[in-house]
Amino acid sequence: MDGKLYAIGVGPGASDLITVRGARIIGELDVLYAPAGKKGAPSLAHTIVQEYVSAKTEVRTYHFLMQASADDKAAVWDEVAQALKDEVKNGRKVGFITLGDAMLFSTWVSLLERIGRQPWLEIVPGVTSFAAIAARGVMPLAMETQTMAVISCTVSEDELEQTLRSHDCVVLMKVYGRLEQVRALLHRLNLLEHALMMADATLPTEQCWRDLSQSDSELKLPYFSTILVNKHWNTSR
Amino acid sequence: MDGKLYAIGVGPGASDLITVRGARIIGELDVLYAPAGKKGAPSLAHTIVQEYVSAKTEVRTYHFLMQASADDKAAVWDEVAQALKDEVKNGRKVGFITLGDAMLFSTWVSLLERIGRQPWLEIVPGVTSFAAIAARGVMPLAMETQTMAVISCTVSEDELEQTLRSHDCVVLMKVYGRLEQVRALLHRLNLLEHALMMADATLPTEQCWRDLSQSDSELKLPYFSTILVNKHWNTSR
Repeated sequence: MDGKLYAIGVGPGASDLITVRGARIIGELDVLYAPAGKKGAPSLAHTIVQEYVSAKTEVRTYHFLMQASADDKAAVWDEVAQALKDEVKNGRKVGFITLGDAMLFSTWVSLLERIGRQPWLEIVPGVTSFAAIAARGVMPLAMETQTMAVISCTVSEDELEQTLRSHDCVVLMKVYGRLEQVRALLHRLNLLEHALMMADATLPTEQCWRDLSQSDSELKLPYFSTILVNKHWNTSR
Repeated sequence: MDGKLYAIGVGPGASDLITVRGARIIGELDVLYAPAGKKGAPSLAHTIVQEYVSAKTEVRTYHFLMQASADDKAAVWDEVAQALKDEVKNGRKVGFITLGDAMLFSTWVSLLERIGRQPWLEIVPGVTSFAAIAARGVMPLAMETQTMAVISCTVSEDELEQTLRSHDCVVLMKVYGRLEQVRALLHRLNLLEHALMMADATLPTEQCWRDLSQSDSELKLPYFSTILVNKHWNTSR
């Protein structure tokens, strides 16, 4: 049995921010599984790697509906995990791609829970979105003995506040729909001048907000919006 | 003035875990600045990118002595920052490489503090060491609404404990010299079976410890040793 499964983090968005290894492996695949958020919508992960995909590679787009019930999601994971294992059993080289890094806030982990550690599995790490935001926004993350936390704005305000108080540097993910609450919290903690917001980092649609002190009710925040906070760095710098 | 400065994260260790963009830019440089920890020692970052460096590129290795006094370090940062700015002023394409990602626990940030945001500066993100460890150890980091913290074991035991209690997933960096204390703490918090230690991930010298419950006084821990803790994952899995 020569089948092999590769889980590949394709990076934050720009095609050339995938790793050299990821790009090479994608070019050698028999089958590529690409996740998409909505039915009918193109897979962003697939768009990113398109230039590396060989004409002989079969591409399958799977839809992981973010709004679906836990049971419906589990059924899709079960199905895709089984499909991937079957490909390997049939001796094929199969790839599963995922935005950012493969192991951090990644759909791939739900499949890994079902597949487990296997000699025929290789995970290829990728550049995380917050590393790309830090680079594009020219705002460093933690250094030396400083600490960093990564947290979704979907948690309770208490937990957000505790995390902002405890760490030098905080990555606030999933700001979408919660900007005003988060802005108010940052204001209360005197952190607005240490915060930067970015959407779609490294994509042509990239947007950066260096001054979060002004409320903007007209602001149409894209889905992939993240705020970086670094107490040792001033955003106006 | 056509000079440009690129700060490039070269990834965790394997040459092909640099980004496609990083590898391409390195091949086009007039000058490459590579940091090394010890005088006379080769630069690991330089070794990683060697295959991408063109014969026409000048390579300069700078020594950032980790044991040096704050003043001595600052003098080296000042000197290198000035040298990089001079290269740009002279119209050259200059690169500064750094292990892992350029903006996270990176020597580059000390230079960025001196250089500031500039139209001639581009920062190229890289794969962080903990993403590589998660991939190689087949141990996921945080997902969905879970939170992750990254912390150096050089902080106080109280802060380590607080961080381990507050987050689903914790990356413990700089374990070197502190393994027994960290092991005891993980034992006390019932986290040993959720912890994995790795050194030199993705390098030929990579080592992985999946069972930290046994003390091993003979253990010669390499300098780049990191422990991942994920409360929702069992290491023996």
